[in-house]
Amino acid sequence: MPILVVGSIALDTVKTPFGEATDVLGGSANFFSAAASMFSPVRVVAVVGDDYPIDDLDFLKARNVDFGGLERAPGNSFRWGGTYSFDLNSRETNFTDLGVFADFTPKIPEEFRDSQYVFLGNIDPVLQLEVLKQVNDPRLVICDTMNYWIGGERHDALIELLEHVDLLMVNDEEARQLADHHNLLVAARRIQEMGPTHVVVKKGEHGAAIFGEDTVFFVPGFPLEEVFDPTGAGDSFAGGFVGHLASMGSERDGDYRRAMVYGSAMGSFAVEMFSVDRFRTLSSGEIFNRVREFREMTTFEHVIPDVEP
Amino acid sequence: MPILVVGSIALDTVKTPFGEATDVLGGSANFFSAAASMFSPVRVVAVVGDDYPIDDLDFLKARNVDFGGLERAPGNSFRWGGTYSFDLNSRETNFTDLGVFADFTPKIPEEFRDSQYVFLGNIDPVLQLEVLKQVNDPRLVICDTMNYWIGGERHDALIELLEHVDLLMVNDEEARQLADHHNLLVAARRIQEMGPTHVVVKKGEHGAAIFGEDTVFFVPGFPLEEVFDPTGAGDSFAGGFVGHLASMGSERDGDYRRAMVYGSAMGSFAVEMFSVDRFRTLSSGEIFNRVREFREMTTFEHVIPDVEP
Repeated sequence: MPILVVGSIALDTVKTPFGEATDVLGGSANFFSAAASMFSPVRVVAVVGDDYPIDDLDFLKARNVDFGGLERAPGNSFRWGGTYSFDLNSRETNFTDLGVFADFTPKIPEEFRDSQYVFLGNIDPVLQLEVLKQVNDPRLVICDTMNYWIGGERHDALIELLEHVDLLMVNDEEARQLADHHNLLVAARRIQEMGPTHVVVKKGEHGAAIFGEDTVFFVPGFPLEEVFDPTGAGDSFAGGFVGHLASMGSERDGDYRRAMVYGSAMGSFAVEMFSVDRFRTLSSGEIFNRVREFREMTTFEHVIPDVEP
Repeated sequence: MPILVVGSIALDTVKTPFGEATDVLGGSANFFSAAASMFSPVRVVAVVGDDYPIDDLDFLKARNVDFGGLERAPGNSFRWGGTYSFDLNSRETNFTDLGVFADFTPKIPEEFRDSQYVFLGNIDPVLQLEVLKQVNDPRLVICDTMNYWIGGERHDALIELLEHVDLLMVNDEEARQLADHHNLLVAARRIQEMGPTHVVVKKGEHGAAIFGEDTVFFVPGFPLEEVFDPTGAGDSFAGGFVGHLASMGSERDGDYRRAMVYGSAMGSFAVEMFSVDRFRTLSSGEIFNRVREFREMTTFEHVIPDVEP
């Protein structure tokens, strides 16, 4: 089933210890679409300036990404520049030029309004709310946000939004900040009381966890010898996660678990090259093999005796 | 099969946001023994001062911990005092009085020298080497160490020691420091080149990983709503890990995986109360149930298609 994604389509200029790339495809909607479209059709709502190299999106169009909601506005596209340190744990933002993204008002085309899966990329919660007002009756609303919105003047809008969200995706620090509690389990439970039935906590190299109604599932970070460029790992994770769910059309506990593994797999591929480049050649076989590796890294055989505590 | 442990038997004075405890059982050998003895007999080599409340060790003696190698020396016992902050991520050492531990020279009793499993708790690598000279032909040597020895004047002794170690147990920062590489996978591979066939990396709340010859296995941290006192979690992990291996008498890949889970279970119990108190009443049924929870937190059902990459 098609997934509606609303987010940023940007141009990134990235320096890592391994090289640099200038004005390459970036932004949450690009990474999400590149990953999700390996599993399900994707519908994009975003804005770019009249300087955007639209042809660069052709490889996404060729694999069932519908840019029918991409607005071209007069002015500059959203550009972000950053430099990663050698250990890739710290990054320095060199510049953020919002361009036409500063005045982005998502308009959901009529033919996108029946979307059953909605991914709200990390944008102003007020705009995320606007998106939800324009869709009919989605089956699953997944929302990404960040500390900027949690701690800032949009806090109340975010809290209002959460009542309409089925699954919130944040990193561990954001979860702690939003719930105002240091313990991750307690924080997740508090966030669930705010609306979402599920909370996904991304922990970078330490993997990710999903908190469901009364279940917790962990997936480790994939151990790569070399992380080439961490940009977009989170949105690629989201793409694999939502993409798998939409391809199954089912939201049982087992579906969420598998979605976590597919998400982790796509996040781990994303960081192997600059931009969305790894997804240009990625095959289903490679994805399945990585999912198999995740299973091998986490499985233990044991007949656990049934003993009264 | 019995496990020989050489380490510290201390008295801890701990303050946490939940309370405080004064002069309670502490030290690596105490935590290790309390956890390991749930699975296998344990033989302790350590030193205490003439002020040590020896009767407090009775509950360990009652469950197959042999203190035949515990030396009582004239002077004060090793005392450590620390305070944990509310988020339990930082701790402040209030005092460290080494007492008789400062002149500790491990002497392995004749009847302990045939021990097949040897756990070298975190002490001076020169002393750890001395221990290995006194044991006959152990099947498995497991070694714990820390940044103090990795970066300090004992670095060369540690490197010499590692040639005789089968499995090194460190935290992630220590692994990076020892291998001089930020990437954990690369770091583990480098440490394996120094001697150990296996490297266990403890990552606190993020769980633990074991790197074998060509396998990696991850276990998440157990999500507790309340961590009462983190002291001794690492040594309790080691106790569960080595205890399980010794109870199986086998070191296949599957044994190491299960050992990781038993170690994680015991580490998660240790932090539920002060000192070794949780192990006083812990039952086999409780341990099995926690192992079952670890499986539930990490298992996903999926028939992964066999597709050519």
